[in-house]
Amino acid sequence: MKEYKVGIIGATGAVGQEMLKVLGERNFPISELRLLASSRSAGKVVESPVYGKLTIGETTNDAFSGLDIVLGAAENNISEQFVDAIKASGAVYIDNSSAFRLRDDVPLVVPEVNGEDAFKHNGVISNPNCSTIITVVAINAINKLSPIQALYASTYQAVSGAGAKGPVEMYEQSKAFLNGEPIPPANIFQYQIAFNLIPQIGGFQENLYTSEEMKLQNEGRKIMHLPDLKVSCTCVRVPVERSHSISANVITKDRLDLDVVRTAIAASKGCQLVDDPASKRYPMPLETSNQDDVFVGRIRRDLIHENGINLWCCGDQVRKGAATNAVQIAELLIGR
Amino acid sequence: MKEYKVGIIGATGAVGQEMLKVLGERNFPISELRLLASSRSAGKVVESPVYGKLTIGETTNDAFSGLDIVLGAAENNISEQFVDAIKASGAVYIDNSSAFRLRDDVPLVVPEVNGEDAFKHNGVISNPNCSTIITVVAINAINKLSPIQALYASTYQAVSGAGAKGPVEMYEQSKAFLNGEPIPPANIFQYQIAFNLIPQIGGFQENLYTSEEMKLQNEGRKIMHLPDLKVSCTCVRVPVERSHSISANVITKDRLDLDVVRTAIAASKGCQLVDDPASKRYPMPLETSNQDDVFVGRIRRDLIHENGINLWCCGDQVRKGAATNAVQIAELLIGR
Repeated sequence: MKEYKVGIIGATGAVGQEMLKVLGERNFPISELRLLASSRSAGKVVESPVYGKLTIGETTNDAFSGLDIVLGAAENNISEQFVDAIKASGAVYIDNSSAFRLRDDVPLVVPEVNGEDAFKHNGVISNPNCSTIITVVAINAINKLSPIQALYASTYQAVSGAGAKGPVEMYEQSKAFLNGEPIPPANIFQYQIAFNLIPQIGGFQENLYTSEEMKLQNEGRKIMHLPDLKVSCTCVRVPVERSHSISANVITKDRLDLDVVRTAIAASKGCQLVDDPASKRYPMPLETSNQDDVFVGRIRRDLIHENGINLWCCGDQVRKGAATNAVQIAELLIGR
Repeated sequence: MKEYKVGIIGATGAVGQEMLKVLGERNFPISELRLLASSRSAGKVVESPVYGKLTIGETTNDAFSGLDIVLGAAENNISEQFVDAIKASGAVYIDNSSAFRLRDDVPLVVPEVNGEDAFKHNGVISNPNCSTIITVVAINAINKLSPIQALYASTYQAVSGAGAKGPVEMYEQSKAFLNGEPIPPANIFQYQIAFNLIPQIGGFQENLYTSEEMKLQNEGRKIMHLPDLKVSCTCVRVPVERSHSISANVITKDRLDLDVVRTAIAASKGCQLVDDPASKRYPMPLETSNQDDVFVGRIRRDLIHENGINLWCCGDQVRKGAATNAVQIAELLIGR
């Protein structure tokens, strides 16, 4: 089997570390794995159960020579800084930042939904926003039954969506609160997240939605090939470590039978149906973390719109919402 | 000033204790305060900073004689068991249970919204569901500007909504988790609530909505005098101690100007507008707990329906969502 030279930039962050883990778990055929990060992290040694000890290199314009694939887990500015060097090296760049997601010449790919788009790349493929990936995987089967016209969504987003320091901040604040000690000040989040909710993820746009809230519409349109899709979204940070949850009302062109919808979701790639109210079975963050599938339940008729369906879904946003999706795109490229 | 003889049944529970506190805070004119609970609690002594030491009596058919007002903080079955005895005693029964809320001869009252309905009682007035009270106070001003046709709502409900043992269970589970100890089994909630979400509050109905989810439609219609109001609601328990939050999309008959809406909400009784995205100001559970007002923010145009408005609101469900609302109804009755 052909083996590939793979690089990860932002390799020391939560998503970069998860990419390393996922590549190993899925036995991605690798002849060389090059982990890259800032000069501050360069020289550190990372241990992988599959690839052994790996020394972090510094991300520079010369760091990509000979690579076939670069997985990007860095911030937008880093991604923008190095994209030309990656392309010049001949590697395909699969980027988790939002820098290029809406560019016409960059495919935005969720393999289960629009895998074919990956092959239209010009050197860069974008990995979508985490909540967007989880939602589109959950509603993909519905969209295939009848095109989705509109989507109301309220999210319940885990603290690990803010990087590795998110859970640390939540747990330290929780511990201090429970011990009756002064609560460490918010640093990663805008306010205390322990035993609280923060209805802001991302910066506010002119239309008073946050950048995170608009991603579900803008990226959802591109991934699902629904240019006229309307999405009204509210994103909320909740004190949960992993797995984002989304309460969604999906309005389709035609009225769908709920059993048909359930059967289609159960058969949909990357989805698991957990929908048995009588047995109190529905998706929850704790039961869906550290897994790659998106879990869907609470499927029922929208009580407002006759073509509407309500559902609840959960998915691990560090894995399927970021690292796993990027590795799956790489797998598409190598014909796996 | 005339003083009244007031009883509380379910006086030892979270809502009963809060009613005792709220009566004192608001200097409700009381000549006798009779606290009633189950035989198990009878004889216990409760200390009130306003009313001094009070001995819990047993709730029996004879326990209500001479009372003017009885505040009910007991479960449905207790409420059903004693309603006739309370009425026979001549007292007005202001009941927080859901037993009588939808009966035609029982007013369902949120004083800021439909206070006038309280005077149509035949001995019983129902206090609405907690999330319903918070939501209708938040959207009352919008409904006055233009009748609300439909409401999409996703709730983020605090553990104290399940009674005094809810927060105990959450904090004990959180402490065990943080100490790396086995997590105490779920007892009050269906599953572990610490660092988790549970998308079920109440039992499932035939239409696959929970009883809690249907209350917002059924009680909302009655309180706001909107018999055709359509509500599609998802209720979720979140690891927060107090203050329920609701992400709401309100669709009105006419298209409203957002600044007009903001001004109306700011002036609406029982509401506080906290809506300044540029300064990262929006309602959060931690900042809205132990208060009586409902806090509203994140007001913006619905991106799907041209007459829709999105908002986010928080309110303390033990206070305005239960105890305070009941005491406010009592105040209406005595002409305060």
